[in-house]
Amino acid sequence: MAMVTLTGMNIIGGSLAGEGTIIFHAENPANGKKLEPAFHEASEKEIWMAIEKAASAFQEYRNMSGRQKGDFLEAIAEEIMALGDELIARCTEETGLPEARLKGERGRTVGQLKLFASYVRDGSWVDARIDHADPARTPPKADIRSMQKALGPVGIFGASNFPLAFSVAGGDTTSALAAGCTVVFKAHPAHPGTCEMVGTAIARAASRSGMPEGTFSMVHGKSTVVGLAIVRHPLIKAIGFTGSYRGGKALFDIANSRPVPIPVYAEMGSTNPVFILPEAMRERKQAIAKDLAASVTLGVGQFCTNPGLVFYQPDEEKNFVDSFSRSLEETSPGVMLTSYIQEAYQAGVEKLSKAKGVNTVLKGKAPSQGSYAPAYLFQSTAEAFLNDHLLEEEVFGPSTLAVTVDHKAQLMRIARQLGGHLTATIHATDKDLQEYADLIAVLEQKVGRLIINGYPTGVEVTHAMVHGGPYPATTDGRSTSVGTDAIKRFSRPLCYQNFPQFLLPDELKDENPLKVWRMVNGKWEKQG
Amino acid sequence: MAMVTLTGMNIIGGSLAGEGTIIFHAENPANGKKLEPAFHEASEKEIWMAIEKAASAFQEYRNMSGRQKGDFLEAIAEEIMALGDELIARCTEETGLPEARLKGERGRTVGQLKLFASYVRDGSWVDARIDHADPARTPPKADIRSMQKALGPVGIFGASNFPLAFSVAGGDTTSALAAGCTVVFKAHPAHPGTCEMVGTAIARAASRSGMPEGTFSMVHGKSTVVGLAIVRHPLIKAIGFTGSYRGGKALFDIANSRPVPIPVYAEMGSTNPVFILPEAMRERKQAIAKDLAASVTLGVGQFCTNPGLVFYQPDEEKNFVDSFSRSLEETSPGVMLTSYIQEAYQAGVEKLSKAKGVNTVLKGKAPSQGSYAPAYLFQSTAEAFLNDHLLEEEVFGPSTLAVTVDHKAQLMRIARQLGGHLTATIHATDKDLQEYADLIAVLEQKVGRLIINGYPTGVEVTHAMVHGGPYPATTDGRSTSVGTDAIKRFSRPLCYQNFPQFLLPDELKDENPLKVWRMVNGKWEKQG
Repeated sequence: MAMVTLTGMNIIGGSLAGEGTIIFHAENPANGKKLEPAFHEASEKEIWMAIEKAASAFQEYRNMSGRQKGDFLEAIAEEIMALGDELIARCTEETGLPEARLKGERGRTVGQLKLFASYVRDGSWVDARIDHADPARTPPKADIRSMQKALGPVGIFGASNFPLAFSVAGGDTTSALAAGCTVVFKAHPAHPGTCEMVGTAIARAASRSGMPEGTFSMVHGKSTVVGLAIVRHPLIKAIGFTGSYRGGKALFDIANSRPVPIPVYAEMGSTNPVFILPEAMRERKQAIAKDLAASVTLGVGQFCTNPGLVFYQPDEEKNFVDSFSRSLEETSPGVMLTSYIQEAYQAGVEKLSKAKGVNTVLKGKAPSQGSYAPAYLFQSTAEAFLNDHLLEEEVFGPSTLAVTVDHKAQLMRIARQLGGHLTATIHATDKDLQEYADLIAVLEQKVGRLIINGYPTGVEVTHAMVHGGPYPATTDGRSTSVGTDAIKRFSRPLCYQNFPQFLLPDELKDENPLKVWRMVNGKWEKQG
Repeated sequence: MAMVTLTGMNIIGGSLAGEGTIIFHAENPANGKKLEPAFHEASEKEIWMAIEKAASAFQEYRNMSGRQKGDFLEAIAEEIMALGDELIARCTEETGLPEARLKGERGRTVGQLKLFASYVRDGSWVDARIDHADPARTPPKADIRSMQKALGPVGIFGASNFPLAFSVAGGDTTSALAAGCTVVFKAHPAHPGTCEMVGTAIARAASRSGMPEGTFSMVHGKSTVVGLAIVRHPLIKAIGFTGSYRGGKALFDIANSRPVPIPVYAEMGSTNPVFILPEAMRERKQAIAKDLAASVTLGVGQFCTNPGLVFYQPDEEKNFVDSFSRSLEETSPGVMLTSYIQEAYQAGVEKLSKAKGVNTVLKGKAPSQGSYAPAYLFQSTAEAFLNDHLLEEEVFGPSTLAVTVDHKAQLMRIARQLGGHLTATIHATDKDLQEYADLIAVLEQKVGRLIINGYPTGVEVTHAMVHGGPYPATTDGRSTSVGTDAIKRFSRPLCYQNFPQFLLPDELKDENPLKVWRMVNGKWEKQG
């Protein structure tokens, strides 16, 4: 295996740059040790250079065929796999995530690239529409055609919690490149070495696929200055972000206050409420407690979809919480991604433990060395929950709040009061579901994804997935950041009136050379 | 013909209300005369009542079938036609628009309602997606399905320039109702009687179609207070608006500063640049001058799509502007919609006439009584245009600025410097188009619709239409406000994981009872 030597530099199109005087290091969260090399925070000049190259590359890249973009995405997948175990090793050092999890995440990342490759090769995603002319009409009707076209150069921010699948070559970058946008990526300072390796893989793939220089750039930065420079730059046309509410909301506000506002797709987390309905509780209490505990602690509770709220009507034995607590206690404590995430987790559970009407049922065990996170289980009542909106807030980590509910009307009141979340889950028998149809109707208006008798963690990368939801789960509840429909975030419709055939994009030519699905005079068809 | 007696009241679901103490009258712009009756500006309590009824009705209306919504939209069309010539007569009094134009606009409005009726009856617009479970996979893959669902109660603002097609039962209301949203409509104070008649027609259609009370309400208001109360209300989930940049931007900023921001679809106007390329200029100068003059003055220049900028390289005879001026002079002056629009027009042309490097070529003739608007033609140079971004701003009315360009490089510089517009038009021969392919590539990034050898006025209501464009033409360049794709502004994707068949919406049930197009495991199909 060839050793990768990390440079600590920014990737500006095809070149490396490290002019900036601010440097920082990654840290191993398992032992607090500083990792080499030093990374250079991008200078303003380097950020601008990256954006200008992205804007210049966009003029060519936007018109790449689905086949060319598909080949490029496949090449990225290959280059990532070619990094081999060194990628996994560095990523483990930087994130504390176990090797098996990271190998799984790499598989997801590569699979995602391949799914988008096939999606753009197929090409039907552009929603091609053709309405033929009618010169005999009074007044004559013109020939009108439209399709989705890429927005422009976009800025993407890496997330810390999925250092591969939601980072450099993650869903945002992949869907933006698939749409035909060029990308300036802001590397996450918690895993800069992982970012460099994957960023280099993308640069290599771009070069060998003949993509214009500047199609992809990556800049480092530990301070907020780097991200702000990207969001404020007039050539940037959209932002993708996964992270905290505070971070996402700040980007959203800045983007809206620009002379020319741009869309921000910020996925800002969620508490993912779970409702256990009465008959399911009686029939499957133990199994739910066990599987729910696994979902709460999955990835050390650092998924956007870990369930942080459980609502239930206690059954006669009133021992669900005991089972849940035991199951949580049996899970192994994990290392959190960074020491500051662990500190925020400690602050969050402390705040919750002191909230009015909240009891601490379990504080799990965890080593005191390194950024380990013990599981926490809190309990409260519907009344307390309805009176304190802070109880709905996400505590990022393996903590959950079980809320007892007295009766259905109270459960409905809670559901109606909920803010926006990524998901809601219902455990129910068919009889429960029939009795609680109105609960489902309310939850449909609160989330992006509803799950029955399952768990919200484990977000499939597929066509029908929606990983999004009403504010404050995201800044744009009309979109998804996972699954093929994520591509639509980075495009807009463009209409061609009375164009001669030779000037039309292939998707809109009469003979339909790409054989894409099109709406022709109101009917969907695939023929030429 | 039955006489309609206007009440001057607000329509709050199925009731009339006029508690407010502020009243105002419409005015005939042709003679400045006050029209009866007095209209009651909605009180805050009435606005809240309308919104609360809309929120309550939404719980039922959101799940109406495409067939039910289609019948409702058709019923609105019928009720509007049933208003007969009285609608046209009142509308002419309030707007100064001629009868023939208003009958045409009524046809467009009714046709639009019917098009959306057929679109939602077909039902395929919901983008239904199904990915089947794979229990054998490790880990097991869940069943994932998704489709578009309505956003909630929305606020729609009527435009003054199309008192039927972009007002009470216009494209925004129609597409919102089609999507499954309930509507609180802010009537335009320039044509409140027209609004009352059409609003009553919708209320009647809602009642006879069995729609829940509150599906549609309409509130009057001359001050900005009424609109702000709508945008700020927490139950309102999106805003549709057509009007000035100032108005649209204000709503956008307020909507983004809410505790829960909501999308604003504001169509804020555009100068619609026209490019006349050299060979077309030589071959068709007279015809272009004549047709362009008609497009500039269409609707007294009060369309969002009137061309306000013309770029051309003077041919040898250098007489294009003379022909253009003569053609403009031959058009009949019209009455503007309101006295304040006429005053704004006068201020706009005055400002333009004093701008550096701008000459007034034509000031058309117009009666001095009433709000008549003379056509104006200004001329300037590329150099002056490139140095003064105010020359790109819309002057709402029959005014246009012809800009001479020395050579192609200068034309390209102008194109690259342009902000967002609804449309751009190119007059060209095939040879011109081949030589100016790079111009088209630039303009693709500036507008929502590109027209070749046509005119931007006359926006077809059809499937492929895009009436939108990058900021500042609109606040959301990813959308269209005309054509069937406008429906997507008022919906978002919702995902159902592991749902039993009986709980799924019909669009997502295995047997596909509605026979909608769906993406099943990545393939589009219509079978069950």
